[in-house]
Amino acid sequence: MSERIILLGHGSGGRLSHRLIRDTIGRILGGDTLHAWADAAILPAMGAQLAFTTDTYVVQPLAFPGGDIGTLAASGTINDLAVMGARPSAMSCGLVIEEGFDLDALEAILRSLRRTADSAGVEIVAGDTKVVRRGDADGLYINTSGIGWLPEPSPLSVEPIRPGDAVIVSGAIAEHGAAVMAAREGLVTTLRSDCAPLAGMIARLLDRCRGVKFMRDPTRGGIATVLNEIVEGRPFGIRLREEAIPVSDAARGFCETLGLDPLYVANEGKVIAVVAAHDADRALDALRADPLGVRAARIGEVAADSPGIVVLETAVGGSRIVGMLAGDQLPRIC
Amino acid sequence: MSERIILLGHGSGGRLSHRLIRDTIGRILGGDTLHAWADAAILPAMGAQLAFTTDTYVVQPLAFPGGDIGTLAASGTINDLAVMGARPSAMSCGLVIEEGFDLDALEAILRSLRRTADSAGVEIVAGDTKVVRRGDADGLYINTSGIGWLPEPSPLSVEPIRPGDAVIVSGAIAEHGAAVMAAREGLVTTLRSDCAPLAGMIARLLDRCRGVKFMRDPTRGGIATVLNEIVEGRPFGIRLREEAIPVSDAARGFCETLGLDPLYVANEGKVIAVVAAHDADRALDALRADPLGVRAARIGEVAADSPGIVVLETAVGGSRIVGMLAGDQLPRIC
Repeated sequence: MSERIILLGHGSGGRLSHRLIRDTIGRILGGDTLHAWADAAILPAMGAQLAFTTDTYVVQPLAFPGGDIGTLAASGTINDLAVMGARPSAMSCGLVIEEGFDLDALEAILRSLRRTADSAGVEIVAGDTKVVRRGDADGLYINTSGIGWLPEPSPLSVEPIRPGDAVIVSGAIAEHGAAVMAAREGLVTTLRSDCAPLAGMIARLLDRCRGVKFMRDPTRGGIATVLNEIVEGRPFGIRLREEAIPVSDAARGFCETLGLDPLYVANEGKVIAVVAAHDADRALDALRADPLGVRAARIGEVAADSPGIVVLETAVGGSRIVGMLAGDQLPRIC
Repeated sequence: MSERIILLGHGSGGRLSHRLIRDTIGRILGGDTLHAWADAAILPAMGAQLAFTTDTYVVQPLAFPGGDIGTLAASGTINDLAVMGARPSAMSCGLVIEEGFDLDALEAILRSLRRTADSAGVEIVAGDTKVVRRGDADGLYINTSGIGWLPEPSPLSVEPIRPGDAVIVSGAIAEHGAAVMAAREGLVTTLRSDCAPLAGMIARLLDRCRGVKFMRDPTRGGIATVLNEIVEGRPFGIRLREEAIPVSDAARGFCETLGLDPLYVANEGKVIAVVAAHDADRALDALRADPLGVRAARIGEVAADSPGIVVLETAVGGSRIVGMLAGDQLPRIC
């Protein structure tokens, strides 16, 4: 019944995106290494392991409280490498610029990108610039691809996850998506995007805590999407405690006003970690020692009694299933 | 006097592009490794050398005689690695898709991309998909970033180039740009894009011929741009013999009709090589042994008497300077 065309929902990070990526893009392009939802590919390389990732950023507006498309493009690619356990090393920058774009605005964005990369010790080593006619793009799109190194094969994977493991988030959720939405609507709020490179915090977490089994940065589609990806087709589920999930008053109020569920709203400076229960406190301590992780919290557990699904125990004592995002919540958020 | 905005010419590959890349993008983003016009960065990596490149493809129309944006995106990135002396290994694919894009057209393009990558032994290992609203892109843009390996530090560089070296092109020029222009205008011609991955041909050339000093694939801006990049600020120039430069009758006729100079028209399946004179015949033999190099030709020499410039000795016995492309000749050609 459905037309064979691309819908905005194909870009939402939810169910339609997954189907497009799995049934079309992954099926046609994918070999042994391409994994539909891994954040970076890991390639054996001359005795070490090379991580390789790509992301294109189409966020609108280009600047928002807490950052701009440059901060975002650098942070996102650095974080995709870091959550795979890699040390980010180098990055490329591919620009698609609309004719008529302001050169001073471009410079400001490139400076943000550089500053963010510098702060994570990542060098920008390759670039490409295309200009398209007025109306053939919306200002500026940036692709950043990145490479990083792992000293040995990464132990991080969904495979070792077991019931009882702790689910940890490194701070308050929904900040990026809410800040971008507010900026897009021209609303004056106290919301700020959380977009930041997490490589340093993640390196210290892995250093101090061997019980970390799996990490992902919950961007497009929010923590709900990442958690669903973890349990999909697995013999376990995840039980979340709503009260334990950190959400700022500003983000909560904004989401309530717009009828958005913060669980589905994008983050650009947070990590979800699944950690062996005995190491959960050590992981929290490691995260909280970093300025970017002060609000880290244990938000739930891996559970044997709900295979394949994510269940939220609500603040009022009920529970509900947190499914994969069905349609299109927030286009052009990243 | 000039407004501080991006013009189409900033994407042409000519003088405006160079200025934007050098004075803005390179200045802000560049560290030790980013080189304004190298096709790929070379990074020391665990005892070997890693090549890393990125390109975004915005060609219009998306399909043209001889290929489509998928063939082009794979070929271009493979060739950028190959001309640096690297063996292409893995590639990413970042899609920006306009809402309403035909899913069957997307599949056909992805199949072209995959087929081209497969033919060069390159695995697609990472991907990203963004969808933007109708009117925020023109169908489909594809970023491909790629990595490849060099067994040892590459000897290929402009440094060893000396007067007397031979300048070689691997076949007839201007095929890609002419075919895309004709397709864009809806003209029925015999023109076909030359877009093809050259990694195999280049590997055999390097294998058989130690005298190769430098290579580049003359894409946007044509061979004129690459040759100018070689001599810019150097104590030597290049003298070309017009009669020696292979151009098909179809491409020559098309360029004459439109008032285009084939030297500036894009190629996507050719390589320019600077080779020690004593090895020039061996290089030509190696190239001509490959189906993609049968029309390889020695088109000129590095010359001490024209430092910093490219001079064309014309068929009628005169000579003229072949400068860098000043404005915008062919937008959205790659």
